[in-house]
Amino acid sequence: MLILHYAKHTVAFASLVALEEAGCAYQAVRLDFVAEEQKGAQYLRINPKGRVPALVTGRGILTETPAILTYIALTNPGANLAPLEPFAFARLQSFLAYLCSTVHPTHSMLKRGARWSDDPAVQEALKLKVPANMRACYRLIEDDYLDGPWVLGETYSVADPYLYILTRWMETDGLDPAEFPKIRDFRDRMAERPAVQRALAAAGMA
Amino acid sequence: MLILHYAKHTVAFASLVALEEAGCAYQAVRLDFVAEEQKGAQYLRINPKGRVPALVTGRGILTETPAILTYIALTNPGANLAPLEPFAFARLQSFLAYLCSTVHPTHSMLKRGARWSDDPAVQEALKLKVPANMRACYRLIEDDYLDGPWVLGETYSVADPYLYILTRWMETDGLDPAEFPKIRDFRDRMAERPAVQRALAAAGMA
Repeated sequence: MLILHYAKHTVAFASLVALEEAGCAYQAVRLDFVAEEQKGAQYLRINPKGRVPALVTGRGILTETPAILTYIALTNPGANLAPLEPFAFARLQSFLAYLCSTVHPTHSMLKRGARWSDDPAVQEALKLKVPANMRACYRLIEDDYLDGPWVLGETYSVADPYLYILTRWMETDGLDPAEFPKIRDFRDRMAERPAVQRALAAAGMA
Repeated sequence: MLILHYAKHTVAFASLVALEEAGCAYQAVRLDFVAEEQKGAQYLRINPKGRVPALVTGRGILTETPAILTYIALTNPGANLAPLEPFAFARLQSFLAYLCSTVHPTHSMLKRGARWSDDPAVQEALKLKVPANMRACYRLIEDDYLDGPWVLGETYSVADPYLYILTRWMETDGLDPAEFPKIRDFRDRMAERPAVQRALAAAGMA
């Protein structure tokens, strides 16, 4: 059985939703980030990066959200969570890569400044540009990448739960969702999906 | 024919190598980052992110290195640049995601601090932790992710040119490659590949 290591209020939620959408049998193991369990020797043996998510499979352990989402989609083809035609599949990978390389790191400047500087004043200074940078990310997604009703258009995919967890942080980022009507409606649609509601309950985030 | 938009001394080099390894017919269009061509109206119509690489295909335009590499691999199966079995494929995606979400952004703190702060003093401060953070990344790659001789073990894949372009910047990052013998040998092996030499020449980086 698959084992997903996650923490509350992290991007690992996207993988939890994907497992629910796919109808996988899985166990979810919650890490306590306040107690810094992700930096403990026991967890570092599972994921030496000290981050979540990590998915333990019968073949080995996978880390990084785009990889876990892709694995869940490819191993559950009946759930239709990723288009298999190469160009459409690459477009999905492009969106996942944009979220992990740009959107999430930008948001992370709010709370993870210690990654980039040991100086508390610099860590504080890094928070200042988050609203403007996140606004630019969501402007691009609203105008160019969210086809609607789902990221890839008519077909729901693993890109959707990944975008969803990030958009749940828009207010924390200092943004008003009313600026982005397509994203706001997308967020409302996601909240209605039974798999999302099950994942919120399972993660203690409901 | 495929058209790759790139700039010298950027991660777009990985896509150029992949096109050469696959034996694709392609045209390479070089952007002048000094003149900020990537922010010009003409290029923003191709890639509204104002970044490289961007790959123009007959189906549409792809951005983000992991997506372009995956597309080149999937559309040229004879070149054997990605394993197709789901777990091995997900492991490849995991490595690509680690490079784009962590390793490359960490390196970027040296020259792209203006993304994160408008304050020149903060931009300077962000350079200080680059050697320690990059050392941690390469320690992880050396110990856990570079199976050798190639990233995925015996089989060369699109993960290799992506790691290669980043490792060419180790000295700039303040690191001594002798600290990481597997990575140092990997770098030497990559430099000997005819496709890498052709891409270096094509990019004016030889």
